[in-house]
Amino acid sequence: MRMPKRTDPKEAQAKLLDEVKSKTLSTEKVRLAEALGRVLAKDVTSKINIPAYDKTFIDGYAINPKDTVGATPPKPATFRVVGKLFPDNYPTRAEVSSGEAIYIACGAPIPKGAASTVKAEETRLNGDKIEVVREIKLGEGVIPMGDDVKQGALILKCGQVLRPQDIGLLASIGMNEAEVYKKPTIAILSGGDELINQCRKDPSKIANNYALVIAGLASELGATAEVKGIMPDKLEQVQSKIGEALTDADIVVTIGGTSVGMKDFVPDAINQLGEPGVVVQGISLRPGAVSGFGIINSKPVVMLPGHIGSCIAGFYLFVAPLIRQFCGLEGDGLLPLLIAELSEAVDSGPQFRFLLLCLKRVESKLLAEQVEGGSSALTTLVKSNGYSIIPPHTKFAKDSKIDVHLFGKLEMSQIT
Amino acid sequence: MRMPKRTDPKEAQAKLLDEVKSKTLSTEKVRLAEALGRVLAKDVTSKINIPAYDKTFIDGYAINPKDTVGATPPKPATFRVVGKLFPDNYPTRAEVSSGEAIYIACGAPIPKGAASTVKAEETRLNGDKIEVVREIKLGEGVIPMGDDVKQGALILKCGQVLRPQDIGLLASIGMNEAEVYKKPTIAILSGGDELINQCRKDPSKIANNYALVIAGLASELGATAEVKGIMPDKLEQVQSKIGEALTDADIVVTIGGTSVGMKDFVPDAINQLGEPGVVVQGISLRPGAVSGFGIINSKPVVMLPGHIGSCIAGFYLFVAPLIRQFCGLEGDGLLPLLIAELSEAVDSGPQFRFLLLCLKRVESKLLAEQVEGGSSALTTLVKSNGYSIIPPHTKFAKDSKIDVHLFGKLEMSQIT
Repeated sequence: MRMPKRTDPKEAQAKLLDEVKSKTLSTEKVRLAEALGRVLAKDVTSKINIPAYDKTFIDGYAINPKDTVGATPPKPATFRVVGKLFPDNYPTRAEVSSGEAIYIACGAPIPKGAASTVKAEETRLNGDKIEVVREIKLGEGVIPMGDDVKQGALILKCGQVLRPQDIGLLASIGMNEAEVYKKPTIAILSGGDELINQCRKDPSKIANNYALVIAGLASELGATAEVKGIMPDKLEQVQSKIGEALTDADIVVTIGGTSVGMKDFVPDAINQLGEPGVVVQGISLRPGAVSGFGIINSKPVVMLPGHIGSCIAGFYLFVAPLIRQFCGLEGDGLLPLLIAELSEAVDSGPQFRFLLLCLKRVESKLLAEQVEGGSSALTTLVKSNGYSIIPPHTKFAKDSKIDVHLFGKLEMSQIT
Repeated sequence: MRMPKRTDPKEAQAKLLDEVKSKTLSTEKVRLAEALGRVLAKDVTSKINIPAYDKTFIDGYAINPKDTVGATPPKPATFRVVGKLFPDNYPTRAEVSSGEAIYIACGAPIPKGAASTVKAEETRLNGDKIEVVREIKLGEGVIPMGDDVKQGALILKCGQVLRPQDIGLLASIGMNEAEVYKKPTIAILSGGDELINQCRKDPSKIANNYALVIAGLASELGATAEVKGIMPDKLEQVQSKIGEALTDADIVVTIGGTSVGMKDFVPDAINQLGEPGVVVQGISLRPGAVSGFGIINSKPVVMLPGHIGSCIAGFYLFVAPLIRQFCGLEGDGLLPLLIAELSEAVDSGPQFRFLLLCLKRVESKLLAEQVEGGSSALTTLVKSNGYSIIPPHTKFAKDSKIDVHLFGKLEMSQIT
């Protein structure tokens, strides 16, 4: 009936990531339209120049700028318009001689003999000629070949999240798909005969709502999460549910049944499923102390506690870094990090402390308020938008700056 | 060949939102598992108490705390264990009398006669009895009925984005689905014979990459975006493509062909499609001046310029607020707002200025660096992660704090 020795949470996390290293980082190719938010699995260099030739970025006329030397409104330079060029007119044999201009649409190639362009609205029409009323600089209105991207240049790095503009750039250099890390699949199992998958009007039954929370958080961080239902309060059934989940998923997450109560079958089930079984049970983190994990055939089974506050602490300690490692993300990955000022002093006490916080914008400052509430109260989590993990025996004064991780990308919308 | 008078961008934006008001804000019901990131379309109050009855949040024993008065390690209070209670044992007739305890698992109802619980690991087993070695407070280890959510309480507000924990809370109060605002559908059309849908090795052809960028940004902000392909450089075809797109989509966005060049057919096409046609063409924003919009049967057609820098400026001025209005989002909606310090002075000049910025974390500060580059260069956008719109004739000194909008939620991962 005693909890095993509590492991340092940072050590436990490092151990977990190390144990499953061999299983992470497989890659796949996806079409660009489906690559948003995925993580690039190799450096990308460009095989082409962008633009591929000197082109204009205005609508106007291509000319030789030498012809405009000394031009002023009363004494304009005059050009005979000898042709038209559009973006699809590459390659072109068009050419201008002295005193000639070619109408040129935005994106069109610069014709031979021209080295600048002048905007249509800056010219005056005079019969079949145009007048330019100022000196035009060499290269005005022209984007030189390779100005945006040089052939051979590294344009995107392995490990970066593909944003809309990155996908646009990949398309620009002629790619139709991107090589990305596979999303890890996470199977979520909940323990307890009091749970039901869908809520009915029965006060003794509880909707399997923490699984929905964990699934949502995991998908926000880049995983494919599946709520795999309920493990009845019987060892054999807990074992067979975890065993099944392990065959398909990259990561199995259990909620509840991790402590030392009479119906806490999860650790025993993991130990019976394979080697090494439970690696860490109990960590020095408050809340979240009864979190832990097991390893079976190098696959992780993360044991999250049944109280929501503890469950979330365990999620961010173990599951979030696992997702990052599977996705090939460095640092905080898709977990937003902000720096905020504490609205009151914090003292972590003898253990690591998982602090639920509500970030608020006050004038031009970001304030972090501690959110108090029972660790079983989902409303506490609804009032929060982020967390901070504070080392043991650490005191922060009011107004200290601390790093706060938002729960996920959607939280940005809740900071008012 | 002259651009019409340039409209103030804030006025143009307000006009657009007002013109389409009648078309926005329809709602639909979605299953909770699909409700992540959607916007709640009505206030939600709870019909139940959570918990529905007094329950424990520990694994241990339910007792009457009066029986522990004066208890110490050498002089413990002793209890006979008369039963077991689990979370699914509600309602229960179990009862404890003085000197009796009931084993109680986390989540189980508190039996009659008991008013507190004591953790199993805090007790000593002595034959068939347990010993409690300290005084237990009234209500210790007990979550009273309604402690988390009171019947009738407002728990989530109309207009808020549903985060994982909000969805968990909806499940807790017995809901299986949520009423949310419909996502607007956005059809994206690109102008120009030089474009091709998929990139081939042909330097005169350009992949339709800006459409991919706009689609990605729109979906990040909560819309369903569809790349609808290319409008050839012919008025009738531009008109028929826009007309087709208008039948299905809530919002049509065109890229390119909005200026006064020879092949800029979009404004004429919109004018021929219905009343009132083009409402704003040309705004006082740099870059982005040739943005505008038309209205046809109260549906918006936003005209974005063909240069990527200008295109993005027009997107955030017109399309992002439209998406928010359709989604029922207030304020900045899903567009992350951060406050940063300018790394160099900024002077907007005579027009509104759309500033591309790269936010960087330097020690505990967030610095905003201006990103320079041609307005046609997609790499400029790849180097940026957000923007700021500065009013005309505004000067900001170096180190001034300014509001920066990130391009979207994925940008948080790029701030290092």
